[in-house]
Amino acid sequence: MKNELSIEEYYNGVKSNDRSILSRAITLIESSKREHQFLSEELIQRCLPHSGNSIRIGITGVPGVGKSTFIESFGKHITSQGHKLAVLAIDPSSQKSGGSILGDKTRMEELSSNPNAFIRPTASSGSLGGVARSTRETIILFETAGYDTIIVETVGVGQSETTVHSMVDCFLLLLLAGAGDELQGIKRGIMEMADIITINKADGENIKPAQRASAQVKNAIHLFPPADNGWITQVETCSALENIGLDTIWEAIKSFENSTKLNDAFKNNRQNQAVYWMHQTIKEQLENRFYQNPIMKEKLANIEKALLNNQLSSYQAAKNMLNE
Amino acid sequence: MKNELSIEEYYNGVKSNDRSILSRAITLIESSKREHQFLSEELIQRCLPHSGNSIRIGITGVPGVGKSTFIESFGKHITSQGHKLAVLAIDPSSQKSGGSILGDKTRMEELSSNPNAFIRPTASSGSLGGVARSTRETIILFETAGYDTIIVETVGVGQSETTVHSMVDCFLLLLLAGAGDELQGIKRGIMEMADIITINKADGENIKPAQRASAQVKNAIHLFPPADNGWITQVETCSALENIGLDTIWEAIKSFENSTKLNDAFKNNRQNQAVYWMHQTIKEQLENRFYQNPIMKEKLANIEKALLNNQLSSYQAAKNMLNE
Repeated sequence: MKNELSIEEYYNGVKSNDRSILSRAITLIESSKREHQFLSEELIQRCLPHSGNSIRIGITGVPGVGKSTFIESFGKHITSQGHKLAVLAIDPSSQKSGGSILGDKTRMEELSSNPNAFIRPTASSGSLGGVARSTRETIILFETAGYDTIIVETVGVGQSETTVHSMVDCFLLLLLAGAGDELQGIKRGIMEMADIITINKADGENIKPAQRASAQVKNAIHLFPPADNGWITQVETCSALENIGLDTIWEAIKSFENSTKLNDAFKNNRQNQAVYWMHQTIKEQLENRFYQNPIMKEKLANIEKALLNNQLSSYQAAKNMLNE
Repeated sequence: MKNELSIEEYYNGVKSNDRSILSRAITLIESSKREHQFLSEELIQRCLPHSGNSIRIGITGVPGVGKSTFIESFGKHITSQGHKLAVLAIDPSSQKSGGSILGDKTRMEELSSNPNAFIRPTASSGSLGGVARSTRETIILFETAGYDTIIVETVGVGQSETTVHSMVDCFLLLLLAGAGDELQGIKRGIMEMADIITINKADGENIKPAQRASAQVKNAIHLFPPADNGWITQVETCSALENIGLDTIWEAIKSFENSTKLNDAFKNNRQNQAVYWMHQTIKEQLENRFYQNPIMKEKLANIEKALLNNQLSSYQAAKNMLNE
């Protein structure tokens, strides 16, 4: 890190949407160093009263579905309407590949240079809890800096999309047309989480297949039980490449926002998420303290062996561990 | 409880399938009294080596779908083929209604008097963890007593079906034909958990609607991502009332068992479940110790207020709690 900023400098920089300071503030929040965490807590404390005034949108879909192109086109569409957009791209693969952060940055080149947009890739290192924390707190910074539309992008594999779902207002799933194969990579349960489903790449020869896929997905949605917020998942087609259908998706998001604000589901969801993440953090800490104890680690290996050999029931195994 | 049995009497009674002692052993396991828990742990320890040799089937569906009638007819079908069937019916509503345990018992009157069947309703009192423990240990008793087919019945509302799903080999969802409304009561995500879906009451004028519903559900299933065990959810129609289609369902279950035993998914699933329930029990205990502390209870109320007023972030709230 360059020469340290004071808490005052961080706060004023974020508040006035100084892009360089905003960027450094996010790095501060993502840092696992003790002195950075102390500073970042103070910063969040100061930003909290200015947070909350945005629509938080989660976007997911398997690699190849065109998420970056979609966000680039969609971002241009909404910033052209006067919105200020911040994008946080969570890339669980970037640690392994070592280079995809740079890839992410260049992939949304036009949007990156748009003064009304701010793109931030994150390497999502550390535990899921750590990523959850930095994601939620980065959203607070974005909102303090005046961004009214926040996109959290995640890859639709693994656990990250469930995490993202529980920190956004509206969850958008991108799909591709095809013979049902397009869903192969999506984890079970994701489709039922989606508030809006979009069949992307509906252009050229792909228009008809995309429309067919859309009809199929609509049929499937119809069989799903309704969501608690009263919203019925909308299914649309679009072409991010040719800028077709992006307005419809933005309208669907606004319509979702209006409908859930009318019946208080929007507010209730945010409050539930805040309480949920508090308890999740407590649970994670309690478990870490327990399992990271070296005595426990050694004991666990032996007890698991006995458990799998049918010498102990799950409850006896747990009791043995807890008696330590 | 009547005069206490010795551990030896319990064990021999269960082992020889003495129905009265088996019944008392389950009551012992369900008891929250300390001295009963001590005895029940010893009993489970002795029974464990004899457990495991059964197919464990979870059956769920909303009230009115005909679960009891289905189990009655289905139970007669499989016991007539020489199988020994034990049914554990978890009824989360019975505590409130106060009387439905008796209702359960009389609902399966014929099966109850069948010497090759054993029906056990449970009031599912106590925490979800408590029910999970007694359910899993009752399965161990059933298997020790020689039952080769075990059905765990649950109502398809609330959390109980997720719990049951994680302690059975094969999960069967009962649905009714109708204009899509039949799914209204089912929690989101249940359909994706099912290994076999059966449209019940496919009789009389209802045959055509049931076949249409079956086709619709098949279409929806096709859009779901495949399960890890390689099994594609089967959709069937049946009439428990007129004994139609029960053989097909039993064949589907056997086919599921064969297929998952061939690719080791059956064994892996059981081992994962054993480890899962050990960790679940540890987590539940850690959380109970933390949250049931009176100081924590008081503190939590205040911190939640600050959290919902945006005075604290979820992480600061958690940290405050943990610092206590």
